Amino acid sequence: MAEAATARRSRLTPAREAELYGAVLDLLREVGYDTLTMDAVAARTHSSKATLYRQWGGKAELVAKAIRHYKPGGLADVDTGSLREDLHALVAREDDCVMAQNAALMRGLAMAMHTNPDLLRAFKELIVEPEMNEFHRVLRRAVDRGEVRADNPALGYVVHMMLGAFTTRWLIDDLPPTNAFLTSYIDAVMLPALGVSTG
Amino acid sequence: MAEAATARRSRLTPAREAELYGAVLDLLREVGYDTLTMDAVAARTHSSKATLYRQWGGKAELVAKAIRHYKPGGLADVDTGSLREDLHALVAREDDCVMAQNAALMRGLAMAMHTNPDLLRAFKELIVEPEMNEFHRVLRRAVDRGEVRADNPALGYVVHMMLGAFTTRWLIDDLPPTNAFLTSYIDAVMLPALGVSTG
Repeated sequence: MAEAATARRSRLTPAREAELYGAVLDLLREVGYDTLTMDAVAARTHSSKATLYRQWGGKAELVAKAIRHYKPGGLADVDTGSLREDLHALVAREDDCVMAQNAALMRGLAMAMHTNPDLLRAFKELIVEPEMNEFHRVLRRAVDRGEVRADNPALGYVVHMMLGAFTTRWLIDDLPPTNAFLTSYIDAVMLPALGVSTG
Repeated sequence: MAEAATARRSRLTPAREAELYGAVLDLLREVGYDTLTMDAVAARTHSSKATLYRQWGGKAELVAKAIRHYKPGGLADVDTGSLREDLHALVAREDDCVMAQNAALMRGLAMAMHTNPDLLRAFKELIVEPEMNEFHRVLRRAVDRGEVRADNPALGYVVHMMLGAFTTRWLIDDLPPTNAFLTSYIDAVMLPALGVSTG
């Protein structure tokens, strides 16, 4: 059993594995989970389907591993001493291109996450939660500094505000979410809702 | 040509057509656009696939027509004289069951709308826009009454706030959007962002 696992793992180098996971994420953004086939992954990565099945067992496992492999970039702690500057800095860590890619990934997985609990868990644990924990740390410090009242009811909706603007932008404006859009939304909506003056 | 169109239309009664569109929307909520097949529609509605293709031509046309057939219920104008009461009343027009169904429909169409412009247009024109025009009418009256300043920057983000909370609830809280949730979100986020006191 241990030998078999080693044999399976040894088939691919880490670089090759990363390349493969990258191709899976690209395909998810382009066609979505339901339309993604092992044939398409094999063609895109010049692998054999037999290799893919031997290594990952199937599509659900391959996609979950690809998401797990993905790490949101640059989670270094942000602490400027002002909530407004902190929120702007958090948004600015991802360039517009990465933001559009993440929005496409959410879209590609939206339906499948409802029918596949493993996929939902992987996506929440590895993409949504690390990002949102950052927002919560920044807000906790704003409360500690007295910038936001601890009983402000908007504190319970910060993730809905932020992720909501991120995911609805394309439907409402026919545009991807960008730094400029989210920065303006933070100033117009999030800070006033949290009782922080932006003027 | 006119005769052929009449012959095609005469195959189904309006009641039967409504039943068929209802089944298409149910399937969209359950499995999403990409996984939806004409076979599944035929099985669910006890029709022959030949009839479906003769009547609608294909999946994209059938789904667009089913969305067009759908009318958001009760768009009677809301005007209570207070923005808070108006927003609460708008949200209360749909019961929790209908709201969960609409959220599921958005999910089922999210990916397909990106690759199919006709589907996106049908969904925006027939589901998103009528709903959002109502919000804009209510906000315009609040500005006219002097309840909201005409230059409040959050006015440009009302749809992002509302639709964002609606669509992200399941991902963040593992729960569908409900009346209670949206009413609380209006009070905690939307009214403070618009500079309206809720106390």
